[in-house]
Amino acid sequence: EIVAAAEAVLRDTAIEAGNLPLAGRHVLITSGPTHEPIDPVRYIANRSSGKQGHALAKAAFEAGARVTLVSGPVTLPDPANVNVIHVESASAMLAAVESNLPADIAIMAAAVADWRVASEGTQKIKKDGSGRPPALELTENPDILATIGHHGSLRPKLLIGFAAETQNLIDNARGKLERKKADWIVANDVSPETGIMGGDANTVRLVSRTGVEDWPELDKTEVARRIIERAAEALAVK
Amino acid sequence: EIVAAAEAVLRDTAIEAGNLPLAGRHVLITSGPTHEPIDPVRYIANRSSGKQGHALAKAAFEAGARVTLVSGPVTLPDPANVNVIHVESASAMLAAVESNLPADIAIMAAAVADWRVASEGTQKIKKDGSGRPPALELTENPDILATIGHHGSLRPKLLIGFAAETQNLIDNARGKLERKKADWIVANDVSPETGIMGGDANTVRLVSRTGVEDWPELDKTEVARRIIERAAEALAVK
Repeated sequence: EIVAAAEAVLRDTAIEAGNLPLAGRHVLITSGPTHEPIDPVRYIANRSSGKQGHALAKAAFEAGARVTLVSGPVTLPDPANVNVIHVESASAMLAAVESNLPADIAIMAAAVADWRVASEGTQKIKKDGSGRPPALELTENPDILATIGHHGSLRPKLLIGFAAETQNLIDNARGKLERKKADWIVANDVSPETGIMGGDANTVRLVSRTGVEDWPELDKTEVARRIIERAAEALAVK
Repeated sequence: EIVAAAEAVLRDTAIEAGNLPLAGRHVLITSGPTHEPIDPVRYIANRSSGKQGHALAKAAFEAGARVTLVSGPVTLPDPANVNVIHVESASAMLAAVESNLPADIAIMAAAVADWRVASEGTQKIKKDGSGRPPALELTENPDILATIGHHGSLRPKLLIGFAAETQNLIDNARGKLERKKADWIVANDVSPETGIMGGDANTVRLVSRTGVEDWPELDKTEVARRIIERAAEALAVK
């Protein structure tokens, strides 16, 4: 807490000196997985540690921004000097994001579940003795990135999405960019053999309308710093 | 580590003095949830912190036993002086349990998923643009408690299961006791309003062939101590 307070003071001094590129800006970030309840004891989850999203929140704070972090269930501590909103499901995450607009930059780094169970059980589902499992009827979750991308007056000036894929990385990222009206997609290959999921390093490709940039393998902290640096530059010329 | 080593030395001294009821016994415990993969980025999970199971492992060690703990994915540290085997799915948990028999006492405290996805995808399942979600075909997981209960020569002398229910607690626990050939079922009501799931306290009912004992609300550490104490007594008269 003392360290966090000192960091805040130092940052305010840097802002006053005009040294921080995101001073006066609001940056809205999502991080972590979502959990979609099946019944009181079971849920469907995505694998996501939240390390990349939380690192982005820290980097945005260090760049001078006011930061709102909407986080799914993670085991990471809340980053200091950041307004953190804890949510569980994709629906709750969307509601938290929308109620925290407007934002200059929005970075949707959470691994949001594409589907949820159509009707959540209020009681624990029991085996019925038939050996046949229950049918689990799924329904599509709201698409947070697309919803924000298609906002009118409340669309962030710069909207950045993530694409975690195991195949057709660039094609999938380009498709997302168009369909969801994002400005950039940070694409990464999360095949288990890469060790990216849950790990400390990340190898990303930055996909925009003008092309694809391949970044080397970097610590997630460093990936976050570069994304924030690039976002500040882009915002300065908008 | 120094504390753990000191605890081990003190315990060995107490064992030599003949003061510990489970000296020379092997206690096998499962703890935590299981995660059943859907594809490389998604899984079905049970809500379970592992606090009760891990507390049982610690209590069994303190009572003089050699302890094997088979743990699903939890955020708790490994208990000291215990042989911990980390697993993810119900199938892996069963395999780890079976390969660690024989045991004098087995306490199956893990919240094992009843169902898994019939065929795990090797690639991330993508939305197909139809708005219709994929069918998630489930298949029943192996029943670890029943498998161990029906073992011939390798059945533990005392087999204790857990029943986490949201309704018909005692009926469900008695059914489990018979079907799975357990000696005791530790039954608890995990309805969200109880705060038991993830919390530090537990209110349990001990169901055996001779009756039902209602225990007061206790810290999970204290619940663990009492279960181990009772188990040691039962083993002494077998």
